[in-house]
Amino acid sequence: MKAEIITIGDEILLGQIVDTNSAFIANELFQNNVSVNTISSIADTREALLEALKRASMRSDLVIITGGLGPTNDDVTKKTAAEFFHVDLIRSPEVFQHVENIFLKRKNQPMLSVNLAQADILENSEVLFNDVGTAPGMWVSHNGVNYAFLPGVPFEMRFLIKERVIPKIREMGSYVSLSNRYILTVGIGESFLAKSIEDIENNLPEDMQLAYLPAINQVLLRLSARGENKEDTIAALEKVEAEIVKRVEKHVVAQKDISIESVILNICLERGKTIVTAESCTGGSIASRLTSVPGYSAVFLGSVVAYDNAVKTSFLGVPVEHIKKYGAVSDEVVTAMAVGGRSRMNADYCLATSGIAGPGGGSQEKPVGTVWVALAGPNGTKSKVFHFHNDRLINIERSVQQAFYMLWKELVGQSHG
Amino acid sequence: MKAEIITIGDEILLGQIVDTNSAFIANELFQNNVSVNTISSIADTREALLEALKRASMRSDLVIITGGLGPTNDDVTKKTAAEFFHVDLIRSPEVFQHVENIFLKRKNQPMLSVNLAQADILENSEVLFNDVGTAPGMWVSHNGVNYAFLPGVPFEMRFLIKERVIPKIREMGSYVSLSNRYILTVGIGESFLAKSIEDIENNLPEDMQLAYLPAINQVLLRLSARGENKEDTIAALEKVEAEIVKRVEKHVVAQKDISIESVILNICLERGKTIVTAESCTGGSIASRLTSVPGYSAVFLGSVVAYDNAVKTSFLGVPVEHIKKYGAVSDEVVTAMAVGGRSRMNADYCLATSGIAGPGGGSQEKPVGTVWVALAGPNGTKSKVFHFHNDRLINIERSVQQAFYMLWKELVGQSHG
Repeated sequence: MKAEIITIGDEILLGQIVDTNSAFIANELFQNNVSVNTISSIADTREALLEALKRASMRSDLVIITGGLGPTNDDVTKKTAAEFFHVDLIRSPEVFQHVENIFLKRKNQPMLSVNLAQADILENSEVLFNDVGTAPGMWVSHNGVNYAFLPGVPFEMRFLIKERVIPKIREMGSYVSLSNRYILTVGIGESFLAKSIEDIENNLPEDMQLAYLPAINQVLLRLSARGENKEDTIAALEKVEAEIVKRVEKHVVAQKDISIESVILNICLERGKTIVTAESCTGGSIASRLTSVPGYSAVFLGSVVAYDNAVKTSFLGVPVEHIKKYGAVSDEVVTAMAVGGRSRMNADYCLATSGIAGPGGGSQEKPVGTVWVALAGPNGTKSKVFHFHNDRLINIERSVQQAFYMLWKELVGQSHG
Repeated sequence: MKAEIITIGDEILLGQIVDTNSAFIANELFQNNVSVNTISSIADTREALLEALKRASMRSDLVIITGGLGPTNDDVTKKTAAEFFHVDLIRSPEVFQHVENIFLKRKNQPMLSVNLAQADILENSEVLFNDVGTAPGMWVSHNGVNYAFLPGVPFEMRFLIKERVIPKIREMGSYVSLSNRYILTVGIGESFLAKSIEDIENNLPEDMQLAYLPAINQVLLRLSARGENKEDTIAALEKVEAEIVKRVEKHVVAQKDISIESVILNICLERGKTIVTAESCTGGSIASRLTSVPGYSAVFLGSVVAYDNAVKTSFLGVPVEHIKKYGAVSDEVVTAMAVGGRSRMNADYCLATSGIAGPGGGSQEKPVGTVWVALAGPNGTKSKVFHFHNDRLINIERSVQQAFYMLWKELVGQSHG
């Protein structure tokens, strides 16, 4: 089955947003043995959509269209699709009821005629019911091609792909299922990792693929294969997985597609350990990342974000003399933050950060990108300095990742490198 | 000038990577008054590239092609482009020298014949010299259309766009410039906003567009127009902008493309006011969002993330009896957090949150999505309860946005609605 994705809207064409929807859809289709041949982003105009639909109808079996289903006038998707299919828009009683219910709950927001129009669907479509928003998805089969129209709001789109579109694709049958194994590595660069497992990669069984999915301070490896016999396929994958894990063992944080903070949560839950943070340059980002994971309230007690030096002193007990003598960005201060945070919040582990995220605040001696990370725990304290670069957000993210890496190594008992 | 972007490579089609290159290029072109009509991602095959080049040559004046210029065998861009233009590939002495120099510096890496091939360029092209990598960019003018071929490695592509492509576009002159005006509204739903300004939208001058760019609890309106005379165009945009602002004045946070937290920063900087946060359910996300903005260290002092009730008591002075009697998710506790955070961290304003982000922790009386937000400031305290839904991350983000909105209203002196 040949698929293509069309995203509608000026935001992408103007470079205001990055098109993350297409990557999500492409990956979901890939997992279900549908290959995507083209992804296009087009303007929110009748002409652009007509041209794109026409071209897609000639070369693809499945066309996923996202965006332009909102209630406002600049959304032309439905009208243009109706024109393309030579059908009318009809009001769906089912969707109408759903939209009305949503507005009944939002007591202070009246329902407007533009919201009612969200219940209008293509006459030749099947509703892809949207439990999480007002804009319905639509599925159209027309001249041997299937079309899925979805809203562009990411969480609504993701819901509809997972709950509505993928099941329909599976119903269409006759796909050979894809199996995956994941290895999350942390603290090893992509090219060094590739070099370490070059021979394994060069000798992969036919039809098995290895993908590197890099992010800051981590690489997620995905091994994929298809086969008529699922058990055999998985066994073949696991054999290669074991070889790779053996080769880079001390960097392997998990053998599934999971975040390092989730791995840390699971270890702490198992051992009944608790975590707090004392953050300066990361400004609450470590706490925010941890608490984004459901269930962290059993392990995470709290954080002191000590941007101002007075907060470092009064809330974390950092000696004023340390700040005066060594500066806030120093081994002494970050260590005192970790120790103070741990004891004052009564936790097993405290991660602390102090650095210069930039763009301002750098000096010759401590340029932008200088970041200290410390960990206080039952076995004493550790600290390490990093020299990142000039981008504030990336420096914050790198600091967060290094903090997680330091805590993970401590928990699994690796020596501090 | 009509531009389009073509990215080549399977990683995007497989959903392994998000196409951030296109957003970067589109934004750079936009900043230089070139509008992008289409962005496509295609496979790394001769057929796909020939089709894409043919289509682009018919509808665009400028085509930016990225990817497929690397040294490995699966990169077919140059061969296919040569076929498309009916030209040969020739070895560029200038690029050859450059590639050789790079390998001389990398002492432990021998130069391979595939690396030499990187010096081969399209006979009809001008080299876009790549200071930061081995793959040169190429600029081709053919039958009135300009083509820029660039490597897909993000930092090489960015270098070539900024240093080579944009200067060429500026030289070309004579484009009809696009002008934009932005209005950031907060606290008004997209459809309600659209209804409020329906008549203005229906009577927009010809060639002026209004786009709604919605995010959680905010809508960014963008008015765009093109015109030979830039001053006239801007005057026309400003006239409509003023009408819209007048209509929804109390929701207008900014008349530019800026975040609400940046607006808050600017107000506080101007008045010398300081902010702290005392966060439970948002887990540090308010602090993290504030500190992501450069310059917030002049205004933001710190935060206590009080996930555990003991931290609420010891660090923020929330009375134990309040927690026992009303529960942690209550008006009394969130107000005490705000008051305690403000006084203990010595700030002008303290934002506090306490709620049930989910998926666990809900009850009949306080279901998942129940969130209290409070603000303590020089004029006393305010608090408000919200009833969000089931998604943890969205509940956190909604809480953060509502907290910003509450603080912004207080700063600009609007009554608390």
